[in-house]
Amino acid sequence: MEFLEQLEAKILEVNKALRKYLEEKDNPQATIYKAMDYSLQAGGKRIRPVLMLACAEMMGAEQEKVMPFACAMEMIHTYSLIHDDLPCMDDDDLRRGKPTNHKVYGEAMAVLAGDGLLNFAYETILKYSQMSPNMTLAAMAIIAESAGVEGMIGGQVIDLESEGKAVDAITLMTMHLHKTAALIMASAKVGALLGGGGRDDLNAMEEFARYLGIAFQIKDDILDVSGSEEVLGKSIGSDKENEKSTFVSVYGLEQSEKMLTDYTQKAIEALSRYGTKAEFLINLSNFLLDRDR
Amino acid sequence: MEFLEQLEAKILEVNKALRKYLEEKDNPQATIYKAMDYSLQAGGKRIRPVLMLACAEMMGAEQEKVMPFACAMEMIHTYSLIHDDLPCMDDDDLRRGKPTNHKVYGEAMAVLAGDGLLNFAYETILKYSQMSPNMTLAAMAIIAESAGVEGMIGGQVIDLESEGKAVDAITLMTMHLHKTAALIMASAKVGALLGGGGRDDLNAMEEFARYLGIAFQIKDDILDVSGSEEVLGKSIGSDKENEKSTFVSVYGLEQSEKMLTDYTQKAIEALSRYGTKAEFLINLSNFLLDRDR
Repeated sequence: MEFLEQLEAKILEVNKALRKYLEEKDNPQATIYKAMDYSLQAGGKRIRPVLMLACAEMMGAEQEKVMPFACAMEMIHTYSLIHDDLPCMDDDDLRRGKPTNHKVYGEAMAVLAGDGLLNFAYETILKYSQMSPNMTLAAMAIIAESAGVEGMIGGQVIDLESEGKAVDAITLMTMHLHKTAALIMASAKVGALLGGGGRDDLNAMEEFARYLGIAFQIKDDILDVSGSEEVLGKSIGSDKENEKSTFVSVYGLEQSEKMLTDYTQKAIEALSRYGTKAEFLINLSNFLLDRDR
Repeated sequence: MEFLEQLEAKILEVNKALRKYLEEKDNPQATIYKAMDYSLQAGGKRIRPVLMLACAEMMGAEQEKVMPFACAMEMIHTYSLIHDDLPCMDDDDLRRGKPTNHKVYGEAMAVLAGDGLLNFAYETILKYSQMSPNMTLAAMAIIAESAGVEGMIGGQVIDLESEGKAVDAITLMTMHLHKTAALIMASAKVGALLGGGGRDDLNAMEEFARYLGIAFQIKDDILDVSGSEEVLGKSIGSDKENEKSTFVSVYGLEQSEKMLTDYTQKAIEALSRYGTKAEFLINLSNFLLDRDR
């Protein structure tokens, strides 16, 4: 199978599982489930779950056993977007070309849908994990730490406190290592763990995903100045308008493009020990480098 | 020891543990931790953790081993209050006599502090549990379900969708079985589970806490019309002002007082099999019945 077919197949499996977990709840017709489902199905790139599945697969695990953890990651990512878009946060009306959650369901329901998705991530693992209790707990611990104040939320706090300020390169990097890279790193590590990898594998996956996560953010920042509004499904130039410091505003476009290529290369180098088994992850890294949205 | 001393001692232990868990984080001086700590230390009654500790103790467990789970419950309760008080939700300025979280830290930080506390509840269990992996997972599953869309969040959704409407008794009861009783029931059940109780114990504790939880809410509603503002630390009559349906608005004051006594009695009856071992829980039930705040 070609890379894009493999990617598409993984995304489809993730989408199917996300739907299934929601549909098996008590009353999936309730508004709150619709609000949760709306943002879950709003067409994200599914980077985090795909990464977890691919890392686990490379170690030799069955995709099915990893799925509850992979979907939990996507739920956590999605809840953070819903809360991030709220009027008191970034106040965004559009996300992936569609009205944001609070624009459709109102602010109060959007707060609850975000809360519901974060909690649902843990519920899903606790309900569907087929891994051993020890493995389940170890994976949850990595996920919980990456999502918390020392991980993603910590990055959002730095973002919030940097609003309207020109931040330096250290603050920018610290912010994105937390806000963006933390969940991506956790996805890769949990994939390695559930796949039966040892400490060396977890370290290698963490290094790979750290570079990949930062490269991913740099690409996002580049697309915000040079992408196509139509393809992106959101207005370009929004970072500048919101006075957000980005890799482009701190390093300039040319240097950012160089960093993007370098970090993607370093991510791929971190996979060298896996030889041809890493083919999908290498292709994924290059795909994210070349994407236009 | 007298009941009030026992209660005070338990509350002190909970407060100490909550502080300790926060202080052992990476950078507890950061604003986000202050915001989380502010609401955690705002002087709640600690009903949920105290109940969990007491139920576990009655079954013969050491308090210390239950503490991470008990504190997780209080964190979940506290996050729900922070989000509930937001301008887009109940828009409350005061909580327990103090300015609400968003009044002190701003709306964006309050959203993140709530998110942080929900996630921190799971982090705390995963980091500090000394129970077996199976026991830890079983306890977390009860907690996660009670906090989710089929539990507390579901109750908040009913509350939100009932705004400005006169609801009937079924809706009112369903709302509070989820919004208030779910976490109280989960606290008692997890206490029984961690204390080594069997299925019968969990059922008995669930029945006890269902009556206690609804009695607790009825008392809250009664205090909102007949309590003292000074003692409560909030304005009375706020339910009426916010057009909230309450036990008093649906059943009247006299009937509500009767239900309060009846349900407290039924809660105590559910403890009969434990004889004198249930003394603390009986006293706690009567204490909650007679409280003035």
